[in-house]
Amino acid sequence: MSRLSRRRLLAGGALTAGGAMAGAAVALARDPDTPTPAEAGPVAHGTQTVPFHGVHQAGIDTPAQAHAAFCAFDLAAGVDRAALGRLMRLLTDDAARLTQGRPALADTEPELAALPARLTVTFGFGPRFFAAAGREALRPESVAPLPAFGIDRLEQRWCGGDLLVQVCADDPLTVTHAQRMLVKDTLAFARPRWTQRGFRRGRGTQDDGVTQRNVMGQLDGTRNPALGSPEFDGAVWVDSGPSWLHGGTTLVVRRIRAEMEKWDAVDTAGKEFAVGRRLDTGAPLSGEHEHDPPDYAATNALGLTVIAEAAHIARAHVDSDRQRIFRRPYNYDEPPGPDGRPDMGLVFAAYQRDVGDQFLPIQRNLAEADLMNDWITPIGSAVFAVPPGCQAGGWIGETLLT
Amino acid sequence: MSRLSRRRLLAGGALTAGGAMAGAAVALARDPDTPTPAEAGPVAHGTQTVPFHGVHQAGIDTPAQAHAAFCAFDLAAGVDRAALGRLMRLLTDDAARLTQGRPALADTEPELAALPARLTVTFGFGPRFFAAAGREALRPESVAPLPAFGIDRLEQRWCGGDLLVQVCADDPLTVTHAQRMLVKDTLAFARPRWTQRGFRRGRGTQDDGVTQRNVMGQLDGTRNPALGSPEFDGAVWVDSGPSWLHGGTTLVVRRIRAEMEKWDAVDTAGKEFAVGRRLDTGAPLSGEHEHDPPDYAATNALGLTVIAEAAHIARAHVDSDRQRIFRRPYNYDEPPGPDGRPDMGLVFAAYQRDVGDQFLPIQRNLAEADLMNDWITPIGSAVFAVPPGCQAGGWIGETLLT
Ligand code: HEM
Ligand code: HEM
Repeated sequence: MSRLSRRRLLAGGALTAGGAMAGAAVALARDPDTPTPAEAGPVAHGTQTVPFHGVHQAGIDTPAQAHAAFCAFDLAAGVDRAALGRLMRLLTDDAARLTQGRPALADTEPELAALPARLTVTFGFGPRFFAAAGREALRPESVAPLPAFGIDRLEQRWCGGDLLVQVCADDPLTVTHAQRMLVKDTLAFARPRWTQRGFRRGRGTQDDGVTQRNVMGQLDGTRNPALGSPEFDGAVWVDSGPSWLHGGTTLVVRRIRAEMEKWDAVDTAGKEFAVGRRLDTGAPLSGEHEHDPPDYAATNALGLTVIAEAAHIARAHVDSDRQRIFRRPYNYDEPPGPDGRPDMGLVFAAYQRDVGDQFLPIQRNLAEADLMNDWITPIGSAVFAVPPGCQAGGWIGETLLT
Repeated sequence: MSRLSRRRLLAGGALTAGGAMAGAAVALARDPDTPTPAEAGPVAHGTQTVPFHGVHQAGIDTPAQAHAAFCAFDLAAGVDRAALGRLMRLLTDDAARLTQGRPALADTEPELAALPARLTVTFGFGPRFFAAAGREALRPESVAPLPAFGIDRLEQRWCGGDLLVQVCADDPLTVTHAQRMLVKDTLAFARPRWTQRGFRRGRGTQDDGVTQRNVMGQLDGTRNPALGSPEFDGAVWVDSGPSWLHGGTTLVVRRIRAEMEKWDAVDTAGKEFAVGRRLDTGAPLSGEHEHDPPDYAATNALGLTVIAEAAHIARAHVDSDRQRIFRRPYNYDEPPGPDGRPDMGLVFAAYQRDVGDQFLPIQRNLAEADLMNDWITPIGSAVFAVPPGCQAGGWIGETLLT
């Protein structure tokens, strides 16, 4: 069962190599018992694949690939349930092929499909998708535009969207090609609304599984539900409510600008105080090592808590595993303006069973009193229901649309 | 001598690992005699460095890194030779540190400097740099805006520039950080004019040294002077004319849009005819293997040349090694417009001793009658003189400015 190999991938940090790679160099699977031939050079990982079919869509519990494109679309007028079924069958077919290193059906650059580099394609349905599908009753209540927050400076060009296609791979050209094939097949049904490219560390820059730094220099991702853990499953996969979404999840995409010039003006102590963690090691200010549990009650000689009450990690923390969110953010970096001002930040992507139960309370806490608010500004916001995965022969969205 | 290690890197395709990496995981240098421990996982290459000091600037004969930012600036009014000297000392110091994995002097995110990932920073001087420096007499004649070509659809926002900073690394976050530090230190002297981010295959997607595909799906780079070869040295490094530029080179940056929708409409045979090479193997239509020398005279049963006279490789080819150019292009891929039209192509960067002697004749040939012209459109153009490298204690530009 394909699910097994995805699990293996998650559990061991090991990566499955393979796919039908006729004509392309085949990646060396890393068998822990076979030493890599020294003359092989860096192990090429471009042929590695992540299974497409499974209980859940890939690209969520997949160790985050180096590159991503988040593509949001507006449905054309008149696109109804039947049309959406055709669209999702088409896109599912594209994704099933491309992720396994095979060209899309009408692929105009089939050569570019040969190196999937752990490509995943993940689909989400925005608030208005449901009305178009005549399924408004099956829309989770909180799959709706987020309420306005005082910290928001939203620009409409980064907000909303009826359909989301999240494309992730370790190779940027693979993302480009897959994105283009998927956009092309969407155009008869919908128009691009916004596209956000993002990046993390290049694959192999660091060892797999190491916590990465974001554009602000912080170790970002330390306290996230561990992929494949019971905490992850309980926080991310929908297991109640309308059955069409069971095994699915919801996704919030916020484009958050980092106010780098203001951030630069702060010294290290100030930056660490705002987050509640050290910049060098990522350790909580109450501890020594990155993964030490933060002690929010620990006090210093003055009787003040070592981790400020308004520190980002204090405000964002929730005790209950079920209420946690799973963060899968990417960095963005656009050309600076003529005044030299940086335009960078995070494409902050958070997965959770329920936006209202999990994301919103945390976002409210942060909007109210997060010390980091001085240096981060939400400029985009969108919410999607992410249907469960499908088996071979099935298609993403079938549980809602049939 | 630092030059030696750069040579070693080029000659062997082997990469030097290192830099002073206190606190960061140290990359495993690949000694061909020591088998990699199987349990080590993919060899992390983020700490690999390319020497900054040397006869030539790095980033030209450096095997192309996965990510690049080309940053062009306009000098502020009143910036004279003395100011340019201060600027170039400052930027040289930043580059010397950052490329070796050390923070810039006033680095506000020193943590982001720890993984250079083969970072190189290469400086170029645009046409007006010389007048500002009071050195107009030392400007190579063809370091000037290129003449207009019939195929051009130039947009001013991608043209010109007095100073170029080319930042390349295998990791996109490393490029972001280095770029920002360099932009910051430039702002007292100049304003960003344009910035172009580009990418090639992620490092490790394929084996090092393999020819890569571009956004159009073609193998791009097959017939390029080999790094470090006598042909390369003779074509790229300036060895006559004003002595300040000896050991330097010139750079043409053309932003060339790929007309993907039109390209899609052509079948494989048509695409191959336009280039003169096969799409799958990259072999010339007159041969079997990628590196077979094209036979421009070979004819088919109809008596027509197998490689069309107007095929891209026929029009672009020059016989004399001294007249060749060295191409070091990157792909770009911007968000599609609301109509779904792709916005992608090449940041085409070509290095040569002399723009007038080498680049221009080729570009003229292509503009006149390249079959590929139907599918590629120059939308940006800029020319720079690239000064030689410097030794420790020296700075880039000293041969012109002192
Ligand atoms: C540019 C925006 C943001 C930046 C730079 C940022 C940065 C960080 C950093 C450095 C940490 C500590 C390390 C870690 O556990 O990952 C952290 C933790 C966290 N952040 Fe953020 N964050 C941002 C926005 C948000 C938003 C919008 C939310 C949710 C609405 C959020 C939720 C969390 C949570 C839940 C944690 C873990 C708290 C815990 O220790 O349990 N963050 N963030
Ligand atoms: C988007 C624009 C372009 C694309 C997609 C493109 C693509 C290609 C391809 C596929 C090849 C054959 C493989 C190889 O040897 O690399 C090639 C060769 C070449 N191209 Fe281009 N090219 C572009 C623009 C240019 C420009 C603007 C120039 C110079 C003005 C140029 C000069 C050359 C040269 C010198 C060769 C090698 C010819 C030989 O075989 O000696 N190309 N190009």
